[in-house]
Amino acid sequence: MSDVPRARVCVDAVGGDFAPAAVLEGIDQALSADPGLDVIVTGPADVVEPFAAQRTARVSAVPTTQFIAMDEHPAQAVRAKRDSSLVVGCRIVREGRADAFFSAGSTGAAMAAATLVMGRIPGVSRPGIATVIPTRGAPVVLLDAGANADCKPENLVEFGHMGAAYSHVVLGVDTPTVALLNIGSEATKGSQLALEAHALLAEHLPGFTGNLEANHLMDGETDVLVTDGFTGNVVLKLLEGASKTILGQVREALTSSVISSIAALAAKPAFDRLRTSLDPDAYGGAPLLGVNGVCIIGHGSSNAKAVSAALRVAAQAVRGGLTRAIAENLAREHDEQQA
Amino acid sequence: MSDVPRARVCVDAVGGDFAPAAVLEGIDQALSADPGLDVIVTGPADVVEPFAAQRTARVSAVPTTQFIAMDEHPAQAVRAKRDSSLVVGCRIVREGRADAFFSAGSTGAAMAAATLVMGRIPGVSRPGIATVIPTRGAPVVLLDAGANADCKPENLVEFGHMGAAYSHVVLGVDTPTVALLNIGSEATKGSQLALEAHALLAEHLPGFTGNLEANHLMDGETDVLVTDGFTGNVVLKLLEGASKTILGQVREALTSSVISSIAALAAKPAFDRLRTSLDPDAYGGAPLLGVNGVCIIGHGSSNAKAVSAALRVAAQAVRGGLTRAIAENLAREHDEQQA
Repeated sequence: MSDVPRARVCVDAVGGDFAPAAVLEGIDQALSADPGLDVIVTGPADVVEPFAAQRTARVSAVPTTQFIAMDEHPAQAVRAKRDSSLVVGCRIVREGRADAFFSAGSTGAAMAAATLVMGRIPGVSRPGIATVIPTRGAPVVLLDAGANADCKPENLVEFGHMGAAYSHVVLGVDTPTVALLNIGSEATKGSQLALEAHALLAEHLPGFTGNLEANHLMDGETDVLVTDGFTGNVVLKLLEGASKTILGQVREALTSSVISSIAALAAKPAFDRLRTSLDPDAYGGAPLLGVNGVCIIGHGSSNAKAVSAALRVAAQAVRGGLTRAIAENLAREHDEQQA
Repeated sequence: MSDVPRARVCVDAVGGDFAPAAVLEGIDQALSADPGLDVIVTGPADVVEPFAAQRTARVSAVPTTQFIAMDEHPAQAVRAKRDSSLVVGCRIVREGRADAFFSAGSTGAAMAAATLVMGRIPGVSRPGIATVIPTRGAPVVLLDAGANADCKPENLVEFGHMGAAYSHVVLGVDTPTVALLNIGSEATKGSQLALEAHALLAEHLPGFTGNLEANHLMDGETDVLVTDGFTGNVVLKLLEGASKTILGQVREALTSSVISSIAALAAKPAFDRLRTSLDPDAYGGAPLLGVNGVCIIGHGSSNAKAVSAALRVAAQAVRGGLTRAIAENLAREHDEQQA
């Protein structure tokens, strides 16, 4: 055992397109990289028991008998399948046997399980999914990235508090700035939701800097960017698709002649660095903020590297006291309202 | 005079960051390229009169005494400044002295002037701004790109009809497909607005193909993409910012070593082609669809090339009967509802 503070993460072994192989390999990578990490794996006995048996005491298995597929109705499946790897994983956190939960399975089901089983932090009306967006400057925590397609202005204030806590604890930003995604820079611009959210954020959120237009998102001008889950999800997916398309066209442009093909070869290392810097997997999955425990949801297509990165983030969130930081931000807000 | 059908476009000489020089130069370029184009310029007498006097009978001037600045309240300014280049330009279209209007001035004021002065096409409750998005395949007409921050589901059906007419008339697509921007591919996914819009579109819009997620926007899978003006504006600005940032990082990556700098030089022509293909200016400004006459609004930063491209698009819209095509699409819809 080392001096690193322990972080106990429960992992759904069977969530994701490449599970269980990619998940188990990712766990091994994370265990090697972080001597303070302990892992509990949930999933079918024939998957998790041999895995745990072949490892040190840092890994234990909790066999489960049910599985929630990607296409099941999230809340219904969570209610019906109480012995699924997802539900059992969240229960292990609620019971205090682990500090964090990770799954690369159905995002909807993971959200539903975490919210229903772990419960919400006092003061949170709607948990939100955060994603870390790479920019030209420091990365930006964007939320909600899709948990709540329809939001009220007060939800966006909660997202601001939760995102600021995440930025501080996981990205190490001292006093994070928070902006509102909007379609104009002035306070009088935007949809009804954006207008009302702007007024509430200005009143209640320390660190609120005003509106940010989407063309400046990748300038890295803010630490946290809040929006409703519909817009946030569109932003996330558009960035994914656009960067893939543009880099693909760059590659085509570079291989359009013999000379530029040689050029492309010469530039490959620089190119690979660029692709990595734009790769959201490097930031290790999307935390569901506002539930009572650390919960990280991986992309369905997570490979071992992405799983390992997510476990690193989970451990960091645990050690930095993310859940407590969110609760404190919201309690302070609540106290100030009472005062 | 040639055999090309005439298209009479009225141009605001003083709208835009580089007006009047860029606007007047753009007019000259367009006149050279299109022998069927006639232009009426509105603006201060000392700008428009010498310009028209030095050209053929294809150019005429209508001097105006007022100017609407970028930071004025759009509707108020339009009501107060009846002799502004914007308002007079729209009046010239309403009076049938021109077929189309172009301005690179304040988007809000141009929208307000066109809507208040030209009026709306019967059946249109909210005009919408369309933009043509370059993709890996055919370009996509996205609307609303910002005219209406808050929309009702029925507005999105109108956008679908108007966008299909634009795609057909200006981009030459025979039977355009129309998709709804949403955060899932299934009909049961999305915000309340998206859910209701999906149902209405499926019922009323020929060519409706269902939801499209933002990561597939640049695949060129649809001819028209409808969404509310808040989301559409975010998409437009995010694409602008992200492509600038990514191409900038590619350039940095390529110039990070001596070898890759040579590579970058060799690849420059291919690179310039790529930048051009991603340049929205090539598609010539954003049409305001639903007003009673062709109205194209240029980016504030329009240069002569962008102005010329916008006038080409305006002439094409006039010759193809865009306004009539929109009216027919909406009337057909109305008849079917009655039947």
